[in-house]
Amino acid sequence: MKILIIGATGTIGQAIVSELESKHQIIKASRSQGDILIDLSSSASINSAFAKLTNLDAVICAAGAVAFAPFNEMTREQWDIGINSRLMGQIYLVQQAARILNDNGSITLTTGIIADHSISTGISAATLSGAIHHFVPHVALELTRGIRVNCVSPSVLTESLDTYADYFPGFQSISAKEVAQYYVRAVEGVETGKVFKAYKNN
Amino acid sequence: MKILIIGATGTIGQAIVSELESKHQIIKASRSQGDILIDLSSSASINSAFAKLTNLDAVICAAGAVAFAPFNEMTREQWDIGINSRLMGQIYLVQQAARILNDNGSITLTTGIIADHSISTGISAATLSGAIHHFVPHVALELTRGIRVNCVSPSVLTESLDTYADYFPGFQSISAKEVAQYYVRAVEGVETGKVFKAYKNN
Repeated sequence: MKILIIGATGTIGQAIVSELESKHQIIKASRSQGDILIDLSSSASINSAFAKLTNLDAVICAAGAVAFAPFNEMTREQWDIGINSRLMGQIYLVQQAARILNDNGSITLTTGIIADHSISTGISAATLSGAIHHFVPHVALELTRGIRVNCVSPSVLTESLDTYADYFPGFQSISAKEVAQYYVRAVEGVETGKVFKAYKNN
Repeated sequence: MKILIIGATGTIGQAIVSELESKHQIIKASRSQGDILIDLSSSASINSAFAKLTNLDAVICAAGAVAFAPFNEMTREQWDIGINSRLMGQIYLVQQAARILNDNGSITLTTGIIADHSISTGISAATLSGAIHHFVPHVALELTRGIRVNCVSPSVLTESLDTYADYFPGFQSISAKEVAQYYVRAVEGVETGKVFKAYKNN
């Protein structure tokens, strides 16, 4: 398969590339480096990239920003970071990928555990990842030509604990390699409309 | 209690007023009529109204627009209708109400069954109501002074079946009077961070 990975230089993106590159042709994308540049928060950037890409079988988005702040301090500008990237960036990506993907292609999005389990300053992540968790099963019903859509929602990464451990007290972390298996399942499997929760429901 | 009801002229709003007005002082608001004018999609309008209101014990939002269209035809402008009203209108309302409400006050938002059960052209309603379903339990943890926040998610109203029955084939409707009981519970009860699903999980 020919697979576009947006956010390929991130911790999860690199792990996905490692899991998939032996069997598939990988096109790496990020905002600043890779085979092609894509800024998820810009519809023009997505359009520009998709105008150059042909014969894609899968699109994986392992990108998507949100702002972190206490709720009572959150400005509309801070909310808009996540609205334009995590929420509408990923939604626009699905809409456009559904046009250009080969028949029976797949799209895989990324959210995170904060949708279900609160952390300090996580209100935007919770709200906008939660929105994607509702978007995915609904939009799966509207896609045609056998195109599938799923979402991976990881717990805090083991690789990120040095930076984020204090925000996730007592949370069980997951390695990027384990998270990457959910993307393999989303791309090579048959499921659609699913949110793969890469954490225990605890 | 002194209770502000936004969307007081709608089918649900009128039913809430009927249930609460014998015991409480009700301030009715909507975009175009009532005791005070509030356009939920405008932070300036919310600010202007809240500058005039004092000693509130509860804020109920029975308003919130979204666009209805097939996913592949949805424009960002159509998404923004719901982002500015259902999503950020209600989020901004919670942020500002939390500042002015009396201690132990309450805020009650409104979404709808489409968050959980798909209908044709309902992708924006599903996504943005779903976002509020995740927002509410998280923001409840950040509110102070005993202020509570809940959400009511009604099924299609029995009163609306003449217009909407074709969009909800086989769905069980609920009367506005029954829905209004969830708002009574949210205002007069003790719960917080809850999404009251006014439909069977079927």
